[in-house]
Amino acid sequence: MSLKLPFVSVNGVLDAAISPLDRGFAYGDGIFETCRYHAGEIPLWFFHRDRLVSSAQRLQIPLNESVLMTQLTSVLNLLHSAAIMAAVVKIQVTRGVGGRGYRIPLDLEPTYCISVFPAEPLHSSNYLNGVDVRICEQRLSTNKSLAGMKHLNRLEQILARAEWQDEYAEGLVMDDSGNLIEATVSNLFAVKNKQLYTPDLTFCGVAGIMRRTILENLAPQLALNVEVGAMSLDFVCSADELFLCNSVYGIWPVNRLVDQRTAPAIVANFAQHSLTRKLQNSVEQFFLRVD
Amino acid sequence: MSLKLPFVSVNGVLDAAISPLDRGFAYGDGIFETCRYHAGEIPLWFFHRDRLVSSAQRLQIPLNESVLMTQLTSVLNLLHSAAIMAAVVKIQVTRGVGGRGYRIPLDLEPTYCISVFPAEPLHSSNYLNGVDVRICEQRLSTNKSLAGMKHLNRLEQILARAEWQDEYAEGLVMDDSGNLIEATVSNLFAVKNKQLYTPDLTFCGVAGIMRRTILENLAPQLALNVEVGAMSLDFVCSADELFLCNSVYGIWPVNRLVDQRTAPAIVANFAQHSLTRKLQNSVEQFFLRVD
Repeated sequence: MSLKLPFVSVNGVLDAAISPLDRGFAYGDGIFETCRYHAGEIPLWFFHRDRLVSSAQRLQIPLNESVLMTQLTSVLNLLHSAAIMAAVVKIQVTRGVGGRGYRIPLDLEPTYCISVFPAEPLHSSNYLNGVDVRICEQRLSTNKSLAGMKHLNRLEQILARAEWQDEYAEGLVMDDSGNLIEATVSNLFAVKNKQLYTPDLTFCGVAGIMRRTILENLAPQLALNVEVGAMSLDFVCSADELFLCNSVYGIWPVNRLVDQRTAPAIVANFAQHSLTRKLQNSVEQFFLRVD
Repeated sequence: MSLKLPFVSVNGVLDAAISPLDRGFAYGDGIFETCRYHAGEIPLWFFHRDRLVSSAQRLQIPLNESVLMTQLTSVLNLLHSAAIMAAVVKIQVTRGVGGRGYRIPLDLEPTYCISVFPAEPLHSSNYLNGVDVRICEQRLSTNKSLAGMKHLNRLEQILARAEWQDEYAEGLVMDDSGNLIEATVSNLFAVKNKQLYTPDLTFCGVAGIMRRTILENLAPQLALNVEVGAMSLDFVCSADELFLCNSVYGIWPVNRLVDQRTAPAIVANFAQHSLTRKLQNSVEQFFLRVD
Protein backbone atom coordinates (compact mmCIF):
# COMPACT_ATOMS: atom_id res chain seq x y z
CA MET A 1 0.00 0.00 0.00
CA SER A 2 1.30 3.44 -0.80
CA LEU A 3 1.00 6.08 1.89
CA LYS A 4 2.37 9.58 1.52
CA LEU A 5 3.77 11.49 4.48
CA PRO A 6 2.86 13.85 5.98
CA PHE A 7 -0.79 13.02 6.55
CA VAL A 8 -3.22 14.13 9.22
CA SER A 9 -6.18 12.44 10.87
CA VAL A 10 -8.66 14.77 12.59
CA ASN A 11 -11.11 13.01 14.90
CA GLY A 12 -10.41 9.83 12.99
CA VAL A 13 -10.98 11.32 9.52
CA LEU A 14 -8.01 11.46 7.16
CA ASP A 15 -7.09 14.89 5.78
CA ALA A 16 -10.02 16.60 7.50
CA ALA A 17 -9.86 20.27 8.42
CA ILE A 18 -10.22 22.19 11.67
CA SER A 19 -13.05 24.54 12.60
CA PRO A 20 -11.90 28.16 12.93
CA LEU A 21 -13.81 28.10 16.24
CA ASP A 22 -11.60 25.31 17.60
CA ARG A 23 -10.10 26.57 20.84
CA GLY A 24 -6.74 25.17 19.80
CA PHE A 25 -6.74 27.66 16.93
CA ALA A 26 -8.31 30.49 18.95
CA TYR A 27 -6.21 30.30 22.12
CA GLY A 28 -3.65 27.51 21.89
CA ASP A 29 -6.05 25.74 24.25
CA GLY A 30 -4.68 22.22 24.14
CA ILE A 31 -1.71 19.89 24.44
CA PHE A 32 0.45 17.74 22.20
CA GLU A 33 2.95 14.92 22.09
CA THR A 34 5.58 14.35 19.44
CA CYS A 35 6.52 10.69 19.38
CA ARG A 36 8.97 8.49 17.52
CA TYR A 37 7.22 5.61 15.76
CA HIS A 38 9.22 2.49 15.14
CA ALA A 39 8.08 -0.66 13.39
CA GLY A 40 4.45 -0.69 14.42
CA GLU A 41 4.70 1.00 17.80
CA ILE A 42 5.60 4.08 19.79
CA PRO A 43 8.33 2.73 22.06
CA LEU A 44 7.93 5.37 24.80
CA TRP A 45 4.14 5.42 24.64
CA PHE A 46 3.69 4.79 28.35
CA PHE A 47 5.35 8.10 29.23
CA HIS A 48 3.69 10.03 26.39
CA ARG A 49 0.31 8.76 27.49
CA ASP A 50 1.04 9.66 31.09
CA ARG A 51 1.98 13.26 30.25
CA LEU A 52 -1.00 13.65 27.93
CA VAL A 53 -3.45 12.41 30.54
CA SER A 54 -1.98 14.38 33.43
CA SER A 55 -1.72 17.58 31.35
CA ALA A 56 -5.35 17.20 30.24
CA GLN A 57 -6.32 16.88 33.90
CA ARG A 58 -4.33 19.99 34.86
CA LEU A 59 -6.00 21.97 32.05
CA GLN A 60 -9.45 20.45 32.71
CA ILE A 61 -9.64 18.99 29.20
CA PRO A 62 -11.93 15.91 29.28
CA LEU A 63 -9.64 13.72 27.22
CA ASN A 64 -11.33 10.44 26.34
CA GLU A 65 -8.57 7.85 26.28
CA SER A 66 -10.55 5.20 24.47
CA VAL A 67 -11.49 7.63 21.68
CA LEU A 68 -7.86 8.67 21.37
CA MET A 69 -6.55 5.10 21.42
CA THR A 70 -8.98 4.01 18.69
CA GLN A 71 -7.75 6.80 16.44
CA LEU A 72 -4.09 6.26 17.27
CA THR A 73 -4.33 2.52 16.67
CA SER A 74 -5.88 3.14 13.31
CA VAL A 75 -3.03 5.51 12.33
CA LEU A 76 -0.38 3.05 13.53
CA ASN A 77 -2.10 0.28 11.55
CA LEU A 78 -1.94 2.45 8.43
CA LEU A 79 1.80 2.95 8.91
CA HIS A 80 2.32 -0.74 9.55
CA SER A 81 0.30 -1.77 6.47
CA ALA A 82 2.35 0.60 4.35
CA ALA A 83 5.55 -0.99 5.72
CA ILE A 84 6.75 2.34 7.05
CA MET A 85 9.37 1.55 9.66
CA ALA A 86 10.08 4.99 11.14
CA ALA A 87 8.00 8.14 11.43
CA VAL A 88 7.22 11.03 13.74
CA VAL A 89 3.68 10.85 15.12
CA LYS A 90 2.31 14.06 16.57
CA ILE A 91 -0.79 13.78 18.74
CA GLN A 92 -2.63 16.99 19.45
CA VAL A 93 -5.66 17.29 21.74
CA THR A 94 -7.53 20.57 22.00
CA ARG A 95 -10.45 21.52 24.21
CA GLY A 96 -12.68 21.37 21.11
CA VAL A 97 -14.90 23.72 19.16
CA GLY A 98 -16.22 26.41 21.48
CA GLY A 99 -17.69 29.87 21.27
CA ARG A 100 -15.96 33.18 21.77
CA GLY A 101 -14.40 33.83 25.15
CA TYR A 102 -11.99 32.21 27.58
CA ARG A 103 -14.68 30.60 29.67
CA ILE A 104 -14.71 26.83 29.16
CA PRO A 105 -18.06 25.85 27.61
CA LEU A 106 -19.89 22.90 29.14
CA ASP A 107 -19.96 19.54 27.39
CA LEU A 108 -17.22 20.30 24.91
CA GLU A 109 -15.81 17.34 22.99
CA PRO A 110 -12.03 17.55 22.58
CA THR A 111 -10.54 17.60 19.09
CA TYR A 112 -8.05 14.77 18.44
CA CYS A 113 -5.57 15.45 15.67
CA ILE A 114 -2.88 12.94 14.75
CA SER A 115 -0.28 13.98 12.17
CA VAL A 116 2.43 11.76 10.76
CA PHE A 117 5.70 13.16 9.39
CA PRO A 118 8.81 11.50 7.94
CA ALA A 119 11.50 10.73 10.51
CA GLU A 120 15.21 11.34 10.26
CA PRO A 121 17.21 8.14 10.85
CA LEU A 122 18.15 7.78 14.53
CA HIS A 123 21.82 7.59 13.53
CA SER A 124 21.82 11.07 12.10
CA SER A 125 24.92 13.17 11.81
CA ASN A 126 23.92 15.10 14.95
CA TYR A 127 23.55 11.86 16.86
CA LEU A 128 26.84 10.41 15.68
CA ASN A 129 29.04 13.50 15.50
CA GLY A 130 27.47 15.78 18.08
CA VAL A 131 26.17 19.32 17.73
CA ASP A 132 27.04 22.94 18.38
CA VAL A 133 24.48 24.88 20.38
CA ARG A 134 23.94 28.54 21.17
CA ILE A 135 22.48 30.59 24.00
CA CYS A 136 19.16 32.28 23.10
CA GLU A 137 18.35 35.86 24.04
CA GLN A 138 14.68 34.92 24.44
CA ARG A 139 13.81 34.04 28.04
CA LEU A 140 11.17 31.60 29.27
CA SER A 141 8.52 32.95 31.60
CA THR A 142 7.84 31.10 34.82
CA ASN A 143 4.40 29.87 35.82
CA LYS A 144 3.93 26.80 37.98
CA SER A 145 0.42 26.24 36.58
CA LEU A 146 1.78 25.66 33.05
CA ALA A 147 5.26 24.29 33.76
CA GLY A 148 6.13 20.79 32.62
CA MET A 149 3.32 20.46 30.10
CA LYS A 150 3.68 20.31 26.34
CA HIS A 151 0.80 22.72 25.81
CA LEU A 152 -0.01 24.65 22.64
CA ASN A 153 1.18 28.07 23.89
CA ARG A 154 4.55 28.01 22.19
CA LEU A 155 5.33 31.58 21.16
CA GLU A 156 8.39 31.74 23.41
CA GLN A 157 9.88 28.72 21.66
CA ILE A 158 9.08 30.19 18.24
CA LEU A 159 10.78 33.49 19.12
CA ALA A 160 13.78 31.63 20.52
CA ARG A 161 14.07 29.46 17.40
CA ALA A 162 13.80 32.56 15.18
CA GLU A 163 17.14 33.84 16.52
CA TRP A 164 19.26 31.67 14.23
CA GLN A 165 19.16 29.76 10.95
CA ASP A 166 21.13 26.58 10.30
CA GLU A 167 24.41 27.36 11.99
CA TYR A 168 23.41 25.63 15.23
CA ALA A 169 21.45 22.47 15.91
CA GLU A 170 19.75 23.92 18.98
CA GLY A 171 19.55 26.91 21.27
CA LEU A 172 19.59 26.84 25.06
CA VAL A 173 16.97 28.95 26.79
CA MET A 174 17.10 30.50 30.26
CA ASP A 175 14.44 31.67 32.65
CA ASP A 176 14.27 35.28 33.86
CA SER A 177 16.82 34.57 36.58
CA GLY A 178 19.37 33.39 34.03
CA ASN A 179 19.14 29.72 34.91
CA LEU A 180 19.32 27.33 31.98
CA ILE A 181 16.03 25.47 31.58
CA GLU A 182 16.08 23.55 28.30
CA ALA A 183 16.66 23.95 24.58
CA THR A 184 13.88 24.90 22.15
CA VAL A 185 12.79 21.31 21.44
CA SER A 186 15.07 19.40 23.80
CA ASN A 187 15.93 18.88 27.43
CA LEU A 188 19.42 19.45 28.72
CA PHE A 189 21.78 17.28 30.76
CA ALA A 190 25.30 17.95 32.01
CA VAL A 191 27.76 15.35 33.20
CA LYS A 192 30.31 16.24 35.87
CA ASN A 193 32.45 13.80 37.87
CA LYS A 194 30.36 10.91 36.55
CA GLN A 195 27.16 12.41 37.89
CA LEU A 196 24.23 13.67 35.78
CA TYR A 197 22.63 17.10 36.24
CA THR A 198 19.47 18.43 34.66
CA PRO A 199 17.42 21.61 35.27
CA ASP A 200 14.49 21.60 37.65
CA LEU A 201 11.27 22.22 35.69
CA THR A 202 8.88 23.07 38.52
CA PHE A 203 8.31 26.62 37.32
CA CYS A 204 9.21 26.55 33.65
CA GLY A 205 10.01 24.25 30.75
CA VAL A 206 8.66 21.06 29.23
CA ALA A 207 9.21 17.84 31.17
CA GLY A 208 10.36 15.80 28.19
CA ILE A 209 9.73 12.10 27.67
CA MET A 210 13.37 11.24 26.93
CA ARG A 211 14.39 13.24 30.02
CA ARG A 212 12.01 11.13 32.08
CA THR A 213 13.30 7.95 30.44
CA ILE A 214 16.83 8.92 31.41
CA LEU A 215 15.82 9.86 34.96
CA GLU A 216 13.70 6.79 35.62
CA ASN A 217 15.19 4.08 33.41
CA LEU A 218 18.56 4.73 31.83
CA ALA A 219 20.42 6.44 34.67
CA PRO A 220 19.42 3.79 37.25
CA GLN A 221 20.40 1.01 34.78
CA LEU A 222 23.86 2.56 34.47
CA ALA A 223 24.00 3.26 38.23
CA LEU A 224 24.27 6.99 37.56
CA ASN A 225 23.10 9.52 40.09
CA VAL A 226 21.08 12.48 38.74
CA GLU A 227 20.74 15.82 40.46
CA VAL A 228 17.72 17.88 39.42
CA GLY A 229 18.13 21.55 40.33
CA ALA A 230 18.98 25.06 39.21
CA MET A 231 21.60 25.03 36.43
CA SER A 232 23.76 28.07 35.74
CA LEU A 233 25.69 28.76 32.57
CA ASP A 234 28.91 28.74 34.63
CA PHE A 235 28.13 25.26 35.86
CA VAL A 236 27.44 24.01 32.35
CA CYS A 237 30.72 25.50 31.12
CA SER A 238 32.58 23.60 33.84
CA ALA A 239 30.89 20.28 33.01
CA ASP A 240 32.71 17.27 31.55
CA GLU A 241 29.98 16.48 29.04
CA LEU A 242 26.80 18.11 27.86
CA PHE A 243 23.97 16.54 25.91
CA LEU A 244 20.47 17.28 24.64
CA CYS A 245 17.62 14.81 24.39
CA ASN A 246 14.11 14.39 23.13
CA SER A 247 11.84 11.51 22.30
CA VAL A 248 12.23 11.86 18.53
CA TYR A 249 16.00 12.09 18.03
CA GLY A 250 17.14 10.41 21.25
CA ILE A 251 20.36 11.98 22.56
CA TRP A 252 22.71 14.44 20.87
CA PRO A 253 26.17 15.04 22.35
CA VAL A 254 27.09 18.75 22.51
CA ASN A 255 30.54 19.62 21.13
CA ARG A 256 30.59 23.38 21.52
CA LEU A 257 28.51 25.93 23.40
CA VAL A 258 28.43 29.39 21.81
CA ASP A 259 27.29 32.57 23.53
CA GLN A 260 27.23 35.41 20.98
CA ARG A 261 26.78 37.92 23.78
CA THR A 262 30.39 37.39 24.89
CA ALA A 263 33.82 37.60 23.33
CA PRO A 264 35.11 35.03 22.63
CA ALA A 265 31.74 33.61 21.66
CA ILE A 266 32.72 30.00 22.21
CA VAL A 267 32.28 29.52 25.93
CA ALA A 268 32.74 25.78 26.23
CA ASN A 269 34.22 22.85 24.30
CA PHE A 270 33.24 19.33 25.24
CA ALA A 271 35.86 16.97 23.90
CA GLN A 272 34.63 13.75 25.47
CA HIS A 273 31.22 12.14 25.40
CA SER A 274 31.87 8.80 27.07
CA LEU A 275 28.84 8.74 29.41
CA THR A 276 26.71 10.36 26.71
CA ARG A 277 27.65 7.52 24.36
CA LYS A 278 26.71 4.95 26.99
CA LEU A 279 23.31 6.59 27.35
CA GLN A 280 22.89 6.62 23.56
CA ASN A 281 23.50 2.89 23.55
CA SER A 282 20.81 2.45 26.17
CA VAL A 283 18.38 4.60 24.18
CA GLU A 284 18.83 2.27 21.24
CA GLN A 285 17.19 -0.46 23.25
CA PHE A 286 14.05 1.64 22.76
CA PHE A 287 14.68 3.15 19.35
CA LEU A 288 16.24 0.46 17.21
CA ARG A 289 18.38 1.72 14.40
CA VAL A 290 16.42 2.34 11.20
CA ASP A 291 18.62 3.55 8.39
CA MET B 1 -30.68 40.17 3.21
CA SER B 2 -30.65 37.64 5.99
CA LEU B 3 -27.31 36.95 7.66
CA LYS B 4 -26.92 34.57 10.59
CA LEU B 5 -24.39 35.21 13.33
CA PRO B 6 -21.90 33.88 14.14
CA PHE B 7 -20.16 33.47 10.80
CA VAL B 8 -16.51 33.17 9.89
CA SER B 9 -14.50 34.23 6.89
CA VAL B 10 -11.16 32.47 6.40
CA ASN B 11 -8.84 34.13 3.90
CA GLY B 12 -11.89 35.80 2.41
CA VAL B 13 -13.94 32.60 2.06
CA LEU B 14 -17.11 32.33 4.13
CA ASP B 15 -17.38 29.33 6.44
CA ALA B 16 -14.09 27.87 5.28
CA ALA B 17 -12.03 25.62 7.54
CA ILE B 18 -8.50 25.76 8.89
CA SER B 19 -5.65 23.42 7.99
CA PRO B 20 -4.55 21.25 10.93
CA LEU B 21 -1.04 22.36 9.96
CA ASP B 22 -1.89 26.03 10.56
CA ARG B 23 0.60 27.35 13.09
CA GLY B 24 -2.22 29.09 14.92
CA PHE B 25 -3.66 25.66 15.69
CA ALA B 26 -0.28 24.01 16.30
CA TYR B 27 1.35 26.62 18.54
CA GLY B 28 -0.98 29.57 19.12
CA ASP B 29 1.36 31.29 16.65
CA GLY B 30 -0.62 34.43 15.90
CA ILE B 31 -2.51 37.45 17.16
CA PHE B 32 -6.08 38.69 17.34
CA GLU B 33 -8.29 41.71 17.89
CA THR B 34 -11.81 41.68 19.25
CA CYS B 35 -13.62 44.79 18.05
CA ARG B 36 -17.02 46.36 18.55
CA TYR B 37 -18.76 46.97 15.23
CA HIS B 38 -21.30 49.76 15.11
CA ALA B 39 -23.41 50.83 12.14
CA GLY B 40 -21.00 50.07 9.33
CA GLU B 41 -17.71 50.65 11.08
CA ILE B 42 -15.31 49.69 13.85
CA PRO B 43 -15.12 52.93 15.83
CA LEU B 44 -11.72 52.23 17.44
CA TRP B 45 -10.20 50.71 14.31
CA PHE B 46 -7.19 53.02 14.31
CA PHE B 47 -5.95 51.57 17.62
CA HIS B 48 -6.88 47.98 16.72
CA ARG B 49 -4.98 48.28 13.47
CA ASP B 50 -1.99 49.79 15.25
CA ARG B 51 -1.76 46.95 17.78
CA LEU B 52 -2.24 44.31 15.07
CA VAL B 53 0.51 45.77 12.90
CA SER B 54 2.98 46.34 15.73
CA SER B 55 2.34 42.89 17.24
CA ALA B 56 2.85 41.26 13.84
CA GLN B 57 6.16 43.08 13.57
CA ARG B 58 7.24 41.97 17.04
CA LEU B 59 6.38 38.35 16.18
CA GLN B 60 7.84 38.58 12.67
CA ILE B 61 4.49 37.74 11.05
CA PRO B 62 4.43 39.28 7.54
CA LEU B 63 0.92 40.71 7.87
CA ASN B 64 -0.27 42.12 4.55
CA GLU B 65 -2.46 45.07 5.45
CA SER B 66 -4.07 45.41 2.05
CA VAL B 67 -5.07 41.72 2.03
CA LEU B 68 -6.50 42.11 5.52
CA MET B 69 -8.36 45.33 4.70
CA THR B 70 -9.95 43.81 1.59
CA GLN B 71 -11.30 40.92 3.66
CA LEU B 72 -12.40 43.13 6.55
CA THR B 73 -14.16 45.58 4.24
CA SER B 74 -16.04 42.73 2.64
CA VAL B 75 -17.19 41.46 6.07
CA LEU B 76 -18.26 44.95 7.16
CA ASN B 77 -20.16 45.36 3.89
CA LEU B 78 -22.00 42.11 4.58
CA LEU B 79 -23.03 43.37 8.02
CA HIS B 80 -24.09 46.70 6.60
CA SER B 81 -26.14 45.12 3.79
CA ALA B 82 -27.88 42.92 6.35
CA ALA B 83 -28.73 46.04 8.40
CA ILE B 84 -26.92 44.64 11.42
CA MET B 85 -26.21 47.61 13.68
CA ALA B 86 -24.03 46.04 16.38
CA ALA B 87 -21.73 43.03 16.39
CA VAL B 88 -18.43 41.76 17.73
CA VAL B 89 -15.84 41.35 14.99
CA LYS B 90 -12.87 39.16 15.83
CA ILE B 91 -9.85 39.40 13.55
CA GLN B 92 -7.28 36.66 13.88
CA VAL B 93 -4.00 36.53 11.98
CA THR B 94 -1.76 33.48 12.25
CA ARG B 95 1.65 32.87 10.76
CA GLY B 96 0.03 30.51 8.25
CA VAL B 97 0.24 26.85 7.31
CA GLY B 98 3.72 25.54 8.09
CA GLY B 99 5.42 22.26 8.68
CA ARG B 100 6.32 20.64 11.97
CA GLY B 101 8.67 22.52 14.26
CA TYR B 102 9.03 25.95 15.85
CA ARG B 103 11.32 27.30 13.16
CA ILE B 104 9.52 29.89 11.04
CA PRO B 105 9.34 28.58 7.45
CA LEU B 106 10.30 30.95 4.65
CA ASP B 107 7.64 32.56 2.47
CA LEU B 108 4.70 31.68 4.68
CA GLU B 109 1.42 33.42 3.90
CA PRO B 110 -0.45 34.42 7.04
CA THR B 111 -3.96 33.10 7.63
CA TYR B 112 -6.61 35.83 8.04
CA CYS B 113 -9.69 34.73 9.92
CA ILE B 114 -12.55 37.15 10.61
CA SER B 115 -15.40 35.93 12.81
CA VAL B 116 -18.56 37.86 13.60
CA PHE B 117 -20.57 37.27 16.78
CA PRO B 118 -23.72 38.90 18.17
CA ALA B 119 -23.04 41.86 20.49
CA GLU B 120 -24.64 42.63 23.83
CA PRO B 121 -26.18 46.10 23.88
CA LEU B 122 -23.70 48.67 25.17
CA HIS B 123 -26.16 49.66 27.89
CA SER B 124 -26.06 46.21 29.48
CA SER B 125 -26.86 45.62 33.11
CA ASN B 126 -23.13 45.45 33.91
CA TYR B 127 -22.59 48.82 32.24
CA LEU B 128 -25.54 50.49 33.95
CA ASN B 129 -25.46 48.85 37.39
CA GLY B 130 -21.82 47.91 37.79
CA VAL B 131 -20.25 44.56 38.55
CA ASP B 132 -18.75 42.47 41.33
CA VAL B 133 -15.28 41.12 40.62
CA ARG B 134 -13.05 38.57 42.28
CA ILE B 135 -9.33 37.97 42.70
CA CYS B 136 -8.02 34.99 40.70
CA GLU B 137 -5.58 32.46 42.11
CA GLN B 138 -4.03 32.03 38.66
CA ARG B 139 -1.00 34.30 38.16
CA LEU B 140 0.24 35.83 34.93
CA SER B 141 3.80 35.10 33.91
CA THR B 142 6.06 37.97 32.98
CA ASN B 143 7.90 38.17 29.68
CA LYS B 144 8.76 41.48 28.07
CA SER B 145 8.91 39.87 24.62
CA LEU B 146 5.21 38.92 24.75
CA ALA B 147 3.78 41.63 27.03
CA GLY B 148 1.17 44.00 25.68
CA MET B 149 0.18 41.88 22.69
CA LYS B 150 -3.12 40.12 22.19
CA HIS B 151 -1.44 36.95 20.99
CA LEU B 152 -2.96 33.49 20.73
CA ASN B 153 -1.20 32.01 23.77
CA ARG B 154 -4.06 32.38 26.21
CA LEU B 155 -3.93 29.39 28.55
CA GLU B 156 -3.34 31.60 31.59
CA GLN B 157 -6.54 33.51 30.88
CA ILE B 158 -8.46 30.27 30.34
CA LEU B 159 -7.25 28.85 33.66
CA ALA B 160 -8.09 32.13 35.43
CA ARG B 161 -11.58 32.21 33.91
CA ALA B 162 -12.14 28.58 34.91
CA GLU B 163 -12.00 29.54 38.61
CA TRP B 164 -15.60 30.75 38.77
CA GLN B 165 -18.96 30.39 37.03
CA ASP B 166 -21.52 33.21 36.82
CA GLU B 167 -21.27 34.73 40.27
CA TYR B 168 -18.79 37.41 39.14
CA ALA B 169 -18.55 39.45 35.97
CA GLU B 170 -14.79 39.37 35.93
CA GLY B 171 -11.69 38.23 37.81
CA LEU B 172 -8.60 40.32 38.52
CA VAL B 173 -5.28 38.67 37.83
CA MET B 174 -1.90 39.38 39.42
CA ASP B 175 1.64 38.79 38.30
CA ASP B 176 4.04 36.64 40.32
CA SER B 177 4.93 39.56 42.57
CA GLY B 178 1.30 40.04 43.56
CA ASN B 179 0.77 43.23 41.58
CA LEU B 180 -2.61 43.54 39.90
CA ILE B 181 -2.21 43.54 36.12
CA GLU B 182 -5.64 43.27 34.50
CA ALA B 183 -8.81 41.18 34.47
CA THR B 184 -9.27 38.14 32.24
CA VAL B 185 -10.71 40.10 29.28
CA SER B 186 -10.45 43.67 30.60
CA ASN B 187 -8.03 46.30 31.73
CA LEU B 188 -8.24 47.83 35.16
CA PHE B 189 -8.38 51.45 36.34
CA ALA B 190 -8.62 52.89 39.84
CA VAL B 191 -9.67 56.44 40.71
CA LYS B 192 -8.22 58.11 43.79
CA ASN B 193 -8.41 61.81 44.64
CA LYS B 194 -9.66 62.55 41.12
CA GLN B 195 -6.62 60.92 39.55
CA LEU B 196 -6.63 57.76 37.40
CA TYR B 197 -4.30 54.83 37.99
CA THR B 198 -3.75 51.79 35.78
CA PRO B 199 -1.19 48.95 35.92
CA ASP B 200 2.02 49.15 33.95
CA LEU B 201 2.02 46.45 31.25
CA THR B 202 5.69 46.43 30.28
CA PHE B 203 6.27 42.88 31.47
CA CYS B 204 2.83 41.30 31.48
CA GLY B 205 -0.76 41.80 30.35
CA VAL B 206 -2.60 42.92 27.24
CA ALA B 207 -2.43 46.61 26.35
CA GLY B 208 -6.14 47.01 25.63
CA ILE B 209 -7.66 49.31 23.06
CA MET B 210 -10.15 50.91 25.45
CA ARG B 211 -7.32 51.41 27.96
CA ARG B 212 -5.36 53.23 25.27
CA THR B 213 -8.44 55.26 24.31
CA ILE B 214 -8.80 56.32 27.93
CA LEU B 215 -5.10 57.14 28.27
CA GLU B 216 -4.77 59.04 25.01
CA ASN B 217 -8.25 60.49 24.38
CA LEU B 218 -10.75 60.38 27.21
CA ALA B 219 -8.58 61.27 30.19
CA PRO B 220 -7.01 64.29 28.45
CA GLN B 221 -10.48 65.46 27.31
CA LEU B 222 -11.64 65.39 30.93
CA ALA B 223 -8.36 66.92 32.13
CA LEU B 224 -7.65 63.82 34.20
CA ASN B 225 -4.13 62.82 35.08
CA VAL B 226 -3.28 59.10 34.73
CA GLU B 227 -0.48 57.34 36.55
CA VAL B 228 0.72 54.10 34.97
CA GLY B 229 2.64 51.96 37.44
CA ALA B 230 2.65 49.00 39.78
CA MET B 231 -0.77 48.51 41.39
CA SER B 232 -1.15 46.63 44.66
CA LEU B 233 -4.34 45.11 46.03
CA ASP B 234 -4.03 47.41 49.06
CA PHE B 235 -3.97 50.44 46.82
CA VAL B 236 -7.04 49.27 44.90
CA CYS B 237 -8.91 48.69 48.16
CA SER B 238 -8.16 52.25 49.20
CA ALA B 239 -9.36 53.72 45.89
CA ASP B 240 -12.45 55.91 45.51
CA GLU B 241 -13.62 54.16 42.34
CA LEU B 242 -12.63 51.11 40.36
CA PHE B 243 -13.59 50.22 36.81
CA LEU B 244 -12.87 47.71 34.08
CA CYS B 245 -12.76 48.39 30.38
CA ASN B 246 -12.42 46.75 27.01
CA SER B 247 -13.19 47.68 23.44
CA VAL B 248 -16.35 45.55 23.23
CA TYR B 249 -18.28 46.48 26.37
CA GLY B 250 -16.75 49.90 27.03
CA ILE B 251 -16.49 50.59 30.77
CA TRP B 252 -17.98 48.66 33.70
CA PRO B 253 -18.02 50.28 37.15
CA VAL B 254 -16.92 47.89 39.92
CA ASN B 255 -19.22 47.75 42.97
CA ARG B 256 -17.52 45.10 45.07
CA LEU B 257 -14.15 43.42 45.08
CA VAL B 258 -14.14 39.91 46.55
CA ASP B 259 -11.06 37.98 47.63
CA GLN B 260 -12.10 34.44 48.61
CA ARG B 261 -8.66 33.85 50.11
CA THR B 262 -9.49 36.17 53.01
CA ALA B 263 -12.20 36.46 55.67
CA PRO B 264 -14.26 38.52 55.23
CA ALA B 265 -14.14 37.84 51.51
CA ILE B 266 -15.44 41.25 50.50
CA VAL B 267 -12.35 43.42 50.60
CA ALA B 268 -13.69 46.60 49.03
CA ASN B 269 -17.01 48.33 48.33
CA PHE B 270 -17.11 51.15 45.82
CA ALA B 271 -20.21 53.22 46.46
CA GLN B 272 -19.59 56.05 44.06
CA HIS B 273 -18.77 55.99 40.36
CA SER B 274 -18.89 59.66 39.43
CA LEU B 275 -15.69 59.83 37.34
CA THR B 276 -16.40 56.38 35.94
CA ARG B 277 -19.80 57.64 34.75
CA LYS B 278 -18.16 60.65 33.11
CA LEU B 279 -15.80 58.33 31.26
CA GLN B 280 -18.71 56.13 30.19
CA ASN B 281 -20.37 59.19 28.71
CA SER B 282 -17.21 59.93 26.77
CA VAL B 283 -17.02 56.35 25.52
CA GLU B 284 -20.49 56.72 24.08
CA GLN B 285 -19.11 59.27 21.66
CA PHE B 286 -17.39 56.26 20.10
CA PHE B 287 -19.94 53.53 20.77
CA LEU B 288 -23.36 55.00 20.18
CA ARG B 289 -26.12 53.35 22.10
CA VAL B 290 -27.65 50.42 20.24
CA ASP B 291 -30.47 48.80 22.17
